[in-house]
Parts: sequence; structure tokens; C-alpha cells
Amino acid sequence: MAIYVGYLAALLGMICWIPQAFQVWRTRDTKSLSLSANLLFLITVSLWLIYGLMITDWPIILANIVSVTAMIAIVAAKLKYK
Amino acid sequence: MAIYVGYLAALLGMICWIPQAFQVWRTRDTKSLSLSANLLFLITVSLWLIYGLMITDWPIILANIVSVTAMIAIVAAKLKYK
Repeated sequence: MAIYVGYLAALLGMICWIPQAFQVWRTRDTKSLSLSANLLFLITVSLWLIYGLMITDWPIILANIVSVTAMIAIVAAKLKYK
Repeated sequence: MAIYVGYLAALLGMICWIPQAFQVWRTRDTKSLSLSANLLFLITVSLWLIYGLMITDWPIILANIVSVTAMIAIVAAKLKYK
């Protein structure tokens, strides 16, 4: 049972920032986004990706490739449309 | 070495949304926040917390109590000041 909760959390965590990435590029409005929070979270998912690569754990690698991509899009929009 | 990268990722992941929570309550501006992204991430960290409780893993429990608190503050602000 616990393992399914973990898989669902991992899946949602992988995709959840995609709507935010689309919204900031569509609206070009990033005013209420905290640069420090989004930058810290980009560093967080990058570290998880590096960790996954170091221990060769494919679920961690794949989940965090998606998150890193979404977070780069969000932080780039924040820096461009501030 | 990998374990320190993992700990650093876990620590940053725990605290990174705190600046966003303070910003939305201070400015009352939530326009550029995606409700679906923030709601999905609140569900994600809630599931991680439930997962941590189910397998009695204290690092997962403690990290996600902080994240759930920050995300509830952000989603509540988004619903209040939309």
C-alpha cells in the first residue's frame, strides 16, 4: 500500500510544475513568483538529478529530468519578464 | 559523497517554498501563481508525508511537514487573494 502512495507522490511531483511553466510563458506575468523560492527549488531538483545519476537510480533520474526542465522554464521566464 | 548530495537536496527541498509563502502573504499578489501547479504540489508533499508516516521514516516525515505547511500557506493565499 505505502509503495503506491510513494509512486503517486513521485509521479505528481514530476509533472506538477508543468502548468506553472506554461502559465508564465503564456501570460509573461511572473510578478508574484518568488525568485529565491523558484531558484532554490531548481537547485533542489538539480541536486536530486545529480544524486540519481550518482547512484544510478532511474526513477529519480527520470522524475527529476522533467522537474528540472519545468523549473528552468519558470526561472528563465522570471528572469526575462521581471 | 552521493549521500551528502541527497541530504542537501532534502534540506533545500524542505525550506525552498518558505520565501514564496512569505511573499504572497506580504504582497497579497498571487496572480502569476498557477493554482493547479501549487495545488498539485500540495497534494504531492501531502502524499510524501503520508508515505513517510506509513513507513515511519522520520527524515521524510519532518521534511514534508515543513513543505506541507509552506504549501498550505501558498494555496490559501492563492484562494483568498485571487
